[in-house]
Amino acid sequence: MQFQLTHEFIEQVEQLIAIQDGNALRGLLHDIHFADIADILEELSSDKATYLVKLLETDLTSEALMELDDDVREKILNRLSPVEIAKELEEMDTDDAADVVAELDEEIQQEVIEKIEDEEHAADIVELLKYDEGSAGGLMAKELVKVKETWTVAGCVREMRRQAENVTRVHSIYVVDMEDALLGRLSLKDLLTADAKTKIQEIYIPKVDSVNVNAAAEDVAKLMQKYDLEAVPVVDNKKVLLGRITIDDIVDFIKEEADKDYQMAAGLSQDVEADDSVWELTRARLPWLVLGLFGGLGSVYIMQGFEEAIDNYPILFFFTPLIAAMAGNVGVQSSAIIVQGLANDNVKGSLVNRLLKEVGLALINGIALGVLVILFGLIVGQDQLVSLTIAISMLSVIIVAALIGTFVPIVLDRKGIDPAIATGPFITTSNDIFGIFLFFYLSKIILGF
Amino acid sequence: MQFQLTHEFIEQVEQLIAIQDGNALRGLLHDIHFADIADILEELSSDKATYLVKLLETDLTSEALMELDDDVREKILNRLSPVEIAKELEEMDTDDAADVVAELDEEIQQEVIEKIEDEEHAADIVELLKYDEGSAGGLMAKELVKVKETWTVAGCVREMRRQAENVTRVHSIYVVDMEDALLGRLSLKDLLTADAKTKIQEIYIPKVDSVNVNAAAEDVAKLMQKYDLEAVPVVDNKKVLLGRITIDDIVDFIKEEADKDYQMAAGLSQDVEADDSVWELTRARLPWLVLGLFGGLGSVYIMQGFEEAIDNYPILFFFTPLIAAMAGNVGVQSSAIIVQGLANDNVKGSLVNRLLKEVGLALINGIALGVLVILFGLIVGQDQLVSLTIAISMLSVIIVAALIGTFVPIVLDRKGIDPAIATGPFITTSNDIFGIFLFFYLSKIILGF
Repeated sequence: MQFQLTHEFIEQVEQLIAIQDGNALRGLLHDIHFADIADILEELSSDKATYLVKLLETDLTSEALMELDDDVREKILNRLSPVEIAKELEEMDTDDAADVVAELDEEIQQEVIEKIEDEEHAADIVELLKYDEGSAGGLMAKELVKVKETWTVAGCVREMRRQAENVTRVHSIYVVDMEDALLGRLSLKDLLTADAKTKIQEIYIPKVDSVNVNAAAEDVAKLMQKYDLEAVPVVDNKKVLLGRITIDDIVDFIKEEADKDYQMAAGLSQDVEADDSVWELTRARLPWLVLGLFGGLGSVYIMQGFEEAIDNYPILFFFTPLIAAMAGNVGVQSSAIIVQGLANDNVKGSLVNRLLKEVGLALINGIALGVLVILFGLIVGQDQLVSLTIAISMLSVIIVAALIGTFVPIVLDRKGIDPAIATGPFITTSNDIFGIFLFFYLSKIILGF
Repeated sequence: MQFQLTHEFIEQVEQLIAIQDGNALRGLLHDIHFADIADILEELSSDKATYLVKLLETDLTSEALMELDDDVREKILNRLSPVEIAKELEEMDTDDAADVVAELDEEIQQEVIEKIEDEEHAADIVELLKYDEGSAGGLMAKELVKVKETWTVAGCVREMRRQAENVTRVHSIYVVDMEDALLGRLSLKDLLTADAKTKIQEIYIPKVDSVNVNAAAEDVAKLMQKYDLEAVPVVDNKKVLLGRITIDDIVDFIKEEADKDYQMAAGLSQDVEADDSVWELTRARLPWLVLGLFGGLGSVYIMQGFEEAIDNYPILFFFTPLIAAMAGNVGVQSSAIIVQGLANDNVKGSLVNRLLKEVGLALINGIALGVLVILFGLIVGQDQLVSLTIAISMLSVIIVAALIGTFVPIVLDRKGIDPAIATGPFITTSNDIFGIFLFFYLSKIILGF
């Protein structure tokens, strides 16, 4: 049932573009979903993709453009005239159109907007451009169906037919007063079952969740998830209905946030994909590796400071990768749980209790691992004092790493910084250095070298 | 606008439960959203939560129960009689009800289902229990609005009013033939604007995406995301309409999958939350730490094999944490990009090309880092041959780690294993050991100790 994009199909499209056979192309691509058209565009050169965008109907290409990677879309838009871009924008919902306009060079933004024939649509786009990308205003669309409380069901259906022209999916019908302030909502189901002469104010549901236009996008996502909302109306401080946010925007938002956290944990400093260029991938990866290198050089420096132990206790130096790995692993485990808990509003109770719990956990894990180290020492016939020293130092390292892993993301979050950076190489690297220092320092005290 | 759950509020609820003042409780909790009721239930002891569930209306508590953590819900259900559970199930959509029944002990499942008064609802639940949790059948609900192609718009509206009783949100109206095979869909908008006597077959949209009941849940999620679907009908091999999956189930599914990948990357072996018990957290964390410990002991063993170098080249041993960290970081970066690419269907081209690209990337990163190591050597006045040796060995380790990080998740994916495990401690640990071995082995060849 799903369209499968093959290599042969792309070649066929490319050949038809080469000989500029528009009719054959239209026939071939007829009935293909816009998301698949987007996949095809991504496989073509920018010039060929632009040819296709100009050739096909704008109701199809406008949707396909929105599915493209930002950089692919930018290349195609750069090859279109302001009038052609304006035609695409006319077919888009206002939220998508505003996103596209924001991506254009500033010089041509004004020109493109002036070329939009539907003045209301153009005004809506200009309004949406005002809002911050990370706010409810930045996510909302102006398209919605609203009715006045004083109308009858019959008048309402008449008016809705008119408004529904511009709205792809009717999620809810919003009920407003004479000043356009949001009063409640009307379900399509209720409208279907009510008598034609009934006044809206008699049948609407006065309880409706809404978000302020300045609310953070993240909070809107949490609210919609928590209350299972498929659409939420956006209002200003005076409760005037400005727009609505739909669940599909939130799905994309959730996916992007999850990807970002994951990449941060993996040590990738920007949004990259497997198919990006070597240069883009290097820019995302090298900075963290350099950070790790400096951390490693720090460890070299610390171990040089304990060099006097190398004759009598070389085994300590053989254990440093293990100590560093333990410090890193425990730190990441602790911070990952906290980061996820913060994202899901799941971290309750005081910081002190949380840290005490981590100490308890670290004690259990550290003692279990310490016993294994001592057993290993017995098996390979290692000096038992050395084994005990390693076990005790490792236990301390684990406790400290767990505390840092818990403390740092919570503090970052309270300071308004994304706690997810705490799971990345930054913490792992500091934990490495700090763990190695603590390990040698405690060993020196116990073994007295 | 959003309800804020305070400590004082919980105390008030607890006191009212203690004196069994049902009326005061109903008054206090009146008008509170089911998702907030769920939050309150999570804060109470199981006995108090059960009291509240029995007290409040089932249309509210059935929704609240679905929002609870699995373990909290289990404790409450264990305290309810089969009849009480059946009453909650009656209010739930069939997909939720089936999930709840599946969680019950097998002995009482049958008894609970027999106590459900609505026989059709009970039969639907029994049908849904047949399907695998990870399939479209496991996600779908039986509630939907369907009409026959031969009906008129007027008849359709009449029938819809009846069916809509059981359907919380009408996403789409599905059009079926006499054998219940899916033909297409009808938008509410079209229904609103059509003449009462028009036949459905004249106005329905014959193009409708659907999924097979046996399709993998992951593929359904991808399809709905790709085509921006808010609901998708589920059919059997004969195209007979069996149910529908809505976007809110997919939102939860996406969130869970992202959380799982993230936890796997952080070295947590099962779904845990910050507020789980110390015992649960230990079970999730200790196995990976033990794995890391064995890896570390492996490194100890390898370094002991190169012990003869310790007199002349102690610096090599100081560099091992750095080498291990580089191997680990590069490996995780490579595999994280692949894992995300695979999840987003973004990894195209052949395995060989992919590996060649990684070698190119590793060369760039490795040479840049190697230059830094040599500069560091110059600054601290280190033997230049040793610096060069370290730089070259590190470069080799980086290349190998990048290749392993790319190769392993792709191979796992082709074998049908979740590639996300490749980002976890398993690969990091193997990379550590392998990197340290390669580092000393190459150093030995170059320096000839």
